[in-house]
Amino acid sequence: MGMGQAVIVAGIGCRKGTSAETIVDALDKASKEHGVAIDFIATAPIKADEPCLLEAATRLNMAFVVVAQPDFELASARTITQSAVSLKHSGSPSLSEAAALAALGPQSRLIAPRMVIGDMTVALATLGDDE
Amino acid sequence: MGMGQAVIVAGIGCRKGTSAETIVDALDKASKEHGVAIDFIATAPIKADEPCLLEAATRLNMAFVVVAQPDFELASARTITQSAVSLKHSGSPSLSEAAALAALGPQSRLIAPRMVIGDMTVALATLGDDE
Repeated sequence: MGMGQAVIVAGIGCRKGTSAETIVDALDKASKEHGVAIDFIATAPIKADEPCLLEAATRLNMAFVVVAQPDFELASARTITQSAVSLKHSGSPSLSEAAALAALGPQSRLIAPRMVIGDMTVALATLGDDE
Repeated sequence: MGMGQAVIVAGIGCRKGTSAETIVDALDKASKEHGVAIDFIATAPIKADEPCLLEAATRLNMAFVVVAQPDFELASARTITQSAVSLKHSGSPSLSEAAALAALGPQSRLIAPRMVIGDMTVALATLGDDE
């Protein structure tokens, strides 16, 4: 990220077997739609071993963060989207939103709630008020 | 991490097949030796798929960060330790130091250079001057 710019994280949820291409394309779409540059990607512990996420991060030269479970749970109280599927599988109303929020800590806020893009979900969060 | 406290990251390098127990013990040792609480762990892209690292992070309820390759390379210029083995395998004089530094960005600094603990290496970094 550039100096003085707000950091942007993309929280990602995906089905087993999603391809890295799908994720790279979805991040590109999300980035353009919201006019921001994504700095790194994050997911929840239950999705940590989906190889596509790490592969997408590597291709994009981005850091890949698996948030801590307690931070994920705390952030789940701040999600906007309510997805029954996400709740059932991850315990959070929106895995992508909670992962994005948790990655930047308690001062984070969503700039883009959950988008469903193909087999995956993406949400964008940033830190503080200095957009 | 607590509010107002400096964030501490442990950069970790390990051999293939290192156990999560070894990592948990080493982090405990590093934490006590330096009188700091470790907030999260980080590694380089080439070590991202060592399952022990994610497992250790999960057990410790910590976030797990795979730093971006360009950040890892930049941070490699700021390492203290010079290890021929690390240089050969990762391209960095110290994988653990470079991972720790890269995880916290260009303003980071080492508070503990590389420690060799059994099969692994740990280095601690923090952000800014506010210890």
